[in-house]
Amino acid sequence: MKKNVLIIGGGGVAQVVAHKCAQHNDLLGDLHIASRTKSKCDSIIESVHQKGAMKVPGTFEAHAVNAMDTAAVADLIRKTGAQIVINVGSAFVNMYVLDACIETGVAYMDTAIHEDPEKICETPPWYGNYEWKKREACEKAGVTAILGVGFDPGVVNAYARLAEDEYLDTITSIDIVDINAGSHGKWFATNFDPEINFREFTGTVYSWQNGQWQSNTMFEVGKEWDLPVVGKQKAYMTGHDEVHSLSARYPQADVRFWMGFGDHYINVFTVLKNLGLLSEQPVKTAEGQEVVPLKVVKAVLPDPASLAPNYTGKTCIGDFVKGTKDGKPAEVFIYNVADHKEAYEEVGSQGISYTAGVPPVAAAILIANGTWDVRKMANVEDLDPKPFISLLNRIGLPTRVKDANGDRAVEFG
Amino acid sequence: MKKNVLIIGGGGVAQVVAHKCAQHNDLLGDLHIASRTKSKCDSIIESVHQKGAMKVPGTFEAHAVNAMDTAAVADLIRKTGAQIVINVGSAFVNMYVLDACIETGVAYMDTAIHEDPEKICETPPWYGNYEWKKREACEKAGVTAILGVGFDPGVVNAYARLAEDEYLDTITSIDIVDINAGSHGKWFATNFDPEINFREFTGTVYSWQNGQWQSNTMFEVGKEWDLPVVGKQKAYMTGHDEVHSLSARYPQADVRFWMGFGDHYINVFTVLKNLGLLSEQPVKTAEGQEVVPLKVVKAVLPDPASLAPNYTGKTCIGDFVKGTKDGKPAEVFIYNVADHKEAYEEVGSQGISYTAGVPPVAAAILIANGTWDVRKMANVEDLDPKPFISLLNRIGLPTRVKDANGDRAVEFG
Repeated sequence: MKKNVLIIGGGGVAQVVAHKCAQHNDLLGDLHIASRTKSKCDSIIESVHQKGAMKVPGTFEAHAVNAMDTAAVADLIRKTGAQIVINVGSAFVNMYVLDACIETGVAYMDTAIHEDPEKICETPPWYGNYEWKKREACEKAGVTAILGVGFDPGVVNAYARLAEDEYLDTITSIDIVDINAGSHGKWFATNFDPEINFREFTGTVYSWQNGQWQSNTMFEVGKEWDLPVVGKQKAYMTGHDEVHSLSARYPQADVRFWMGFGDHYINVFTVLKNLGLLSEQPVKTAEGQEVVPLKVVKAVLPDPASLAPNYTGKTCIGDFVKGTKDGKPAEVFIYNVADHKEAYEEVGSQGISYTAGVPPVAAAILIANGTWDVRKMANVEDLDPKPFISLLNRIGLPTRVKDANGDRAVEFG
Repeated sequence: MKKNVLIIGGGGVAQVVAHKCAQHNDLLGDLHIASRTKSKCDSIIESVHQKGAMKVPGTFEAHAVNAMDTAAVADLIRKTGAQIVINVGSAFVNMYVLDACIETGVAYMDTAIHEDPEKICETPPWYGNYEWKKREACEKAGVTAILGVGFDPGVVNAYARLAEDEYLDTITSIDIVDINAGSHGKWFATNFDPEINFREFTGTVYSWQNGQWQSNTMFEVGKEWDLPVVGKQKAYMTGHDEVHSLSARYPQADVRFWMGFGDHYINVFTVLKNLGLLSEQPVKTAEGQEVVPLKVVKAVLPDPASLAPNYTGKTCIGDFVKGTKDGKPAEVFIYNVADHKEAYEEVGSQGISYTAGVPPVAAAILIANGTWDVRKMANVEDLDPKPFISLLNRIGLPTRVKDANGDRAVEFG
């Protein structure tokens, strides 16, 4: 049994995590939030109080911290008495925060893989480059570290495990499909930090097929998917974290990730990429100023947080899992549908942030009550998916399943 | 009679001017070239000697000068003994160089209108904002100043005047059409300085119609033109210098400028513009760095000079002039066709630079021999077009005319 939560980060996902932690502070204890810019944390706490989100009277404090300074994070953990750290800061800080958790013996979780700002798309499996090198250290320190516990990666990993546990005897393919059928009303915008968003699509697209890594380029492989609620949608094979852990648990299966893109997004992306404006490497202007083009693109694009108030429509994210059941071919689609406007009304963020921010709070509750407090490093598919999915059903992200027996809610017990 | 030429500028057009001056140094005397970066001038002179372009043994010297420092330019004029200054530097330096010419009493010419780096697209007529304010000063000092004597503006202004002098009794419309049907083989590139190129298309499109200024936006008004050699081409009404002087001489006529653009160019331009990446106003990155987006776009695009070796295809630029002849409606198309590869072989630049760089050298020869040494400020349509067009016929830019009597070379005497 653990309690008291420290949230690292001050962006859109941190906002959701803060609201959801507040809604369950009877279970989670004292709440703290820290980022480089304390004022962002102050604003988030203010919005929590405006919504009256705290379930019971309690502590919610803001702090300034440089999350790339392990000693500073460790000090903050000790000072706050946090036993659970939810890291939803930039993808560049993971390893520093994880080290601080190992040093202080507290639980760690994040929602996206560690990235080196200087590198785009390293060799697969990505987790092997950073996180998995700390497995022994976690086990030795008895530290629960749950990697990638947002929606994708995260819930979709639990869906794969649920297919294994409940619906199929053997698994031959896992296709994760992420469709945002919402509309933000801007000419162009990214749904989260443009720098991270574009970095995701500029590298090699790795998929696991026929027992080995396959390389493609972004937008090279497209496929139309017919999904509940959002209908037929074109998605493209995309490099994504969960492929790099699911392929280790299901080496016999093809594991692919597909993200939906409209023609307009692809066109803008293609222009920027082909011109060199998505480069993370500095260029020199005629006046001699050194500039990273991607950071200028980020500067001219709308702040993703600004999209939330006018965002309408729905997301659909889920796993098409194929294999056999009782010796016959079988297929199941396990999925969630979320609504941008409902998310904004509840927590002041759009649906993309909502689907990413609710799952780590569910994981925190499962660590707090001992269910997932495994005292070692785990990817989500390593853990029992049922209590996680049950809890998500109750706190805002209901799961449904569609197979030969119809389209229905997933309920346990 | 004047002699000795000082070229201001070190880009692609300056390269053409240098080669063409060298080919006529028997008439033009000593040659000098100056830009902020002297090494660019050294390279240009080196290429002149590599081609053996100097007609007779003579002087060709490189200098460093800040062309926005009138006193420094005046000193250089005195030091070199130049009596003719060909300004093909950035559009931001015109007024400083013109002032230096007035101060020293030497002839001035340029190929594009003065621009303030801080402003995009000022109120019409553009010449009224800067150049024409110096008319009296030129006349008083007896200084010949020929404005906009590239191809467009420049030769196309002479074509309008030729239509008036030779082909029509009244003029009701002048449509200048500029088509580059060449191919540079890059995914995207601009044919001259991207900063100037994009600035040209981000402001209001002014045209002179029905006796008044009309405002449109770029790519709002498109029209397919059927042209000699390059065939049917889509062009868009574009703001351009010559509209702002021709409308003063021909106030009764509609005066429009049309530039050809492929769908690919328009798409790239539209993406960059709508994202804010063509802005000349600085933005601040998340890291606090102040950056002008347009300068970053310039930094990632190919150097226009690098396009020349692989450029193929032709340009067609000319004037469709309508009016009456002997009381009946009449129409004439006066035009030039230039070839990118031939231009590169002769002077080491592509066709766009060639068409812009040859006309000021023709003008310099006409000033040197007295024909155009009018000792006042003039736009090209104010001058007798015949000696200019005759000379251009002989030095690389032949003029043709197409009307009810057929398609034929324009020859005089």
